Amino acid sequence: MATLDALELLSEHGCFGGVQRFYRHASREIGLPMRFALYLPPQALASQEVPLLTFLAGLTCTEETFTMKAGAQRLAATLGLALLMPDTSPRGAQVAGEADAWDFGVGAGFYLDATQAPWAAHWRMESYLLDELLPGMGPLGAIDGQRLGLFGHSMGGHGALTLALRHPGRFRSLSALAPICAPTRCPWGRKAFTGYLGADEAAWPAHDASALMAGQPSAPYPGGILVDQGLADKFLADQLHPEAFESACAAVGQPLTLRRHAGYDHGYYFIATVIDDHLHHHAAQLA
Amino acid sequence: MATLDALELLSEHGCFGGVQRFYRHASREIGLPMRFALYLPPQALASQEVPLLTFLAGLTCTEETFTMKAGAQRLAATLGLALLMPDTSPRGAQVAGEADAWDFGVGAGFYLDATQAPWAAHWRMESYLLDELLPGMGPLGAIDGQRLGLFGHSMGGHGALTLALRHPGRFRSLSALAPICAPTRCPWGRKAFTGYLGADEAAWPAHDASALMAGQPSAPYPGGILVDQGLADKFLADQLHPEAFESACAAVGQPLTLRRHAGYDHGYYFIATVIDDHLHHHAAQLA
Repeated sequence: MATLDALELLSEHGCFGGVQRFYRHASREIGLPMRFALYLPPQALASQEVPLLTFLAGLTCTEETFTMKAGAQRLAATLGLALLMPDTSPRGAQVAGEADAWDFGVGAGFYLDATQAPWAAHWRMESYLLDELLPGMGPLGAIDGQRLGLFGHSMGGHGALTLALRHPGRFRSLSALAPICAPTRCPWGRKAFTGYLGADEAAWPAHDASALMAGQPSAPYPGGILVDQGLADKFLADQLHPEAFESACAAVGQPLTLRRHAGYDHGYYFIATVIDDHLHHHAAQLA
Repeated sequence: MATLDALELLSEHGCFGGVQRFYRHASREIGLPMRFALYLPPQALASQEVPLLTFLAGLTCTEETFTMKAGAQRLAATLGLALLMPDTSPRGAQVAGEADAWDFGVGAGFYLDATQAPWAAHWRMESYLLDELLPGMGPLGAIDGQRLGLFGHSMGGHGALTLALRHPGRFRSLSALAPICAPTRCPWGRKAFTGYLGADEAAWPAHDASALMAGQPSAPYPGGILVDQGLADKFLADQLHPEAFESACAAVGQPLTLRRHAGYDHGYYFIATVIDDHLHHHAAQLA
């Protein structure tokens, strides 16, 4: 069983009969200390193995953002879901310029392994999540490592969709909230990919959810993918492109429930409003 | 109908079919700009008059803390409750030393009118809430000004219990989470009362929930008061004294449901865990 190096429990809080914990560990993949939050529902505290649902957060967020704002623990406690909230990038690398922009560098790891200097040394969020953090969950509670779900918001929605498509069979359930669906075609994505992957765009589609979906031989998630999008989201027109993902799903026969919500913006009041539907979506496929 | 001066809508967010709004206005009582948050449930947006439940937050908090962390809007939308979240003190007064401590001055208004210089000029949270902010809610939505409930956390629990006892008939329902129940006997309260009310302790019991309750001729809230307290709360032993309020309620025949919760601390994961019970408590008495 894999373990996380130099693991420290920073705090824990009783929450809906379970426990909300915050941890720090020395990441081998990142080469720096990383933090994450883990919610264990009451079932897990009673040693009943539970599925693990990982939430990937958006630009500028940390492991605490979704944990404290989304209100997800209430239903997770009822459904018996553990929740894992990783951070969004390395911190403390002291790479020149890493904190100059809110959409690149610190808080903006884009859930991929950078190939370009100076980012390649630490910005390895894909390997960190898949090869280190998720395998390291076993010792932290009664978590069934075979029943993994993945979702995320905005940049984290991009992360959820791309990682679930790049690692077939690893996740059993998938959803996203206001995801960046076609990063090769939007300013956030093009800036990030240029910096992390280089100016040669040939390397980019392997990290673009719509391109990845379009290249599937058959529906990779036959149980269906849930995506929610607010129509008052100021980033919708330029950055998110849900219609590109919708078209790609249609072309390969991937069942997709894409819900467009009038009057909802890009923030956590929107996320809180639909979070229960996402937890139900995952619980049904992780049962 | 009273109106708030120079009212500005700072932002609004769709939330559970209703709308979460943040406002700023020029407060006459405080003599400075003040912010507050208001949640209007879907019923109010459909012009059906709804009760208003005001939440008073704790030390260091702002109008945003409970709004984003407690998860209260979900059930408020179902029950048809508007939620008002005021700030916790004046800000920008530039009184010498106002931000030197986290438990006095900025973020620590204690929901009373200071009588001592230099605080008396602006630290007038009781008059602000009762005479200005609450009367000013009418124009902001379909709010029934006769059906008011009050609750709060920690310093805000002190605020809820004392204001509801000092203004009989103004509020129909009352509850508190980890409240400061006997401020005349705890370090937070004694520091605040010395600064705001002066060293003469004769003026203090009028702002102490347990003393106020003990002086009631009969039960002021015959429908019952709900108080929740975590037993892993690091402030419980020195600062909160729920047993003092419990004794005072018993002495005057005030029905009190005081629930002590093993494993829960002073923070918002505790508040989120019990928030639905508080909303149900208020909704039943505000119907």
